[in-house]
Amino acid sequence: MLYDMYNNIDQCKKEAAQWYFYLRDFICQQFELIERDFGNGKKFQRKLWNRDGGGGGEMSIMHGDVFEKVGVNISTVFGEFSEKFAKEIPGTEINKVFWACGVSVVAHMNSPFIPAIHMNTRFIATEKCWFGGGIDLTPTFRDNDEERFFHTQLEEVCNKSDLNYYKEFKKACDEYFFLAHRNESRGIGGIFYDYLNSGDWEKDFEFNQNVGISMPNIFTKIVESKINKLWADDDKEAQLIKRGRYVEFNLLYDRGTRFGLMTNGNTESILMSMPPHAIW
Amino acid sequence: MLYDMYNNIDQCKKEAAQWYFYLRDFICQQFELIERDFGNGKKFQRKLWNRDGGGGGEMSIMHGDVFEKVGVNISTVFGEFSEKFAKEIPGTEINKVFWACGVSVVAHMNSPFIPAIHMNTRFIATEKCWFGGGIDLTPTFRDNDEERFFHTQLEEVCNKSDLNYYKEFKKACDEYFFLAHRNESRGIGGIFYDYLNSGDWEKDFEFNQNVGISMPNIFTKIVESKINKLWADDDKEAQLIKRGRYVEFNLLYDRGTRFGLMTNGNTESILMSMPPHAIW
Repeated sequence: MLYDMYNNIDQCKKEAAQWYFYLRDFICQQFELIERDFGNGKKFQRKLWNRDGGGGGEMSIMHGDVFEKVGVNISTVFGEFSEKFAKEIPGTEINKVFWACGVSVVAHMNSPFIPAIHMNTRFIATEKCWFGGGIDLTPTFRDNDEERFFHTQLEEVCNKSDLNYYKEFKKACDEYFFLAHRNESRGIGGIFYDYLNSGDWEKDFEFNQNVGISMPNIFTKIVESKINKLWADDDKEAQLIKRGRYVEFNLLYDRGTRFGLMTNGNTESILMSMPPHAIW
Repeated sequence: MLYDMYNNIDQCKKEAAQWYFYLRDFICQQFELIERDFGNGKKFQRKLWNRDGGGGGEMSIMHGDVFEKVGVNISTVFGEFSEKFAKEIPGTEINKVFWACGVSVVAHMNSPFIPAIHMNTRFIATEKCWFGGGIDLTPTFRDNDEERFFHTQLEEVCNKSDLNYYKEFKKACDEYFFLAHRNESRGIGGIFYDYLNSGDWEKDFEFNQNVGISMPNIFTKIVESKINKLWADDDKEAQLIKRGRYVEFNLLYDRGTRFGLMTNGNTESILMSMPPHAIW
């Protein structure tokens, strides 16, 4: 068996953490370019936070003209899982120590014709280690061309790494972002993956990088295609109702949100995903 | 031992159900009087719903000038609990059959100076039977006089029935309406009780009736004291932020909301408690 970087976990952590800082900066830059070109040039504000028990992170938040509210979170956290939570996580049978870093992005747009987008990518190490993440889109009004473009772009990202990924990760996404109590999907899906460790660090890391980089590129195209479309009050109202569903999903179902809030995470950064404004 | 009506459970159910219809109508009337006197005379709209498995209910909803959104739900439901849920409910060891009726009210007010109010009273029968309920207030801006008035009124309601009730039910309310992830209370509390069966039907039923009737009376006084107070945009903004916390509580913690949504309840009536409009 050839040597694989997964055998040098310290190096994996280092490369992953460095990458996430790069990705965070890249996403913020791309989104600021959108504000520069189509808005009034608003910028992200940053705020550091520390985690009791080890590590911390930084929130970047922008209230712009195109982005009504967008948050880009980076975090590197470590410590020991509780007995109870450890049972849900692989690689904690002997040792409950964990290390995790990642970036998550949620953008709620001013125009009701531009979908909300969500992206998360992370690298987690216990006695095992793996990547997880995904990208999904939540339009208020469905648009066949936009959906085809979005899904095709994600399929291309997946196919660069593995021809089996797209189908599997798209299905997982549809299953995850579903509001059972309303029998409706949160949005139009995208891709969602977890516990990704093929045994080939280069392959997995590259896939994760491609997912991260693709998001602002894909989203910039979507914004450009809709930015000049005018809307009426009832379009905005429909968007605010859709955002109520977004709140319902995040607080009732989202594993990360509920886990974070129930385990003394940083409330402000966890709830950065909440829309700026919602109605019921 | 004297005969007590609790020994005639069918009669208890009948009297409780009749009472809840009366209470629902009384509350709607009182709230419509507030809209007549201080608003533009809006009225409640009603909508019936059926429950798969047995029973159903009726929502009454009003979008007025004083009441930005108020819902008054009545329901009478029956059937059999799931194996899993039955474990959490008294009197289901032998038989998982249940019967429940009740009224719940949530009012979100247009003025940021008038608190949101919530009231619920219910009668539940399995092999055991009991009353539950409570009233609590969620102001955006705290007001000592208002708080003293509110708590004193509830204390009087409790003291009519039992001098031990107020202290116990106030404490239970403070413990229940608490957002652990923000280390803050939802509002200023009130009273909260469950599994109330003293062995004396007349006493328990009367207490429950007094709680129900007191709410619109107390709330009308609170509305009157604040209705002429003018507010600025930042007062309204503070209210919308407070409402975000209300959403967080209901979706993350509220037992009734989560239970209802997770067990195929009527989503529209369960989420009637959501504010009309919230920001984060």
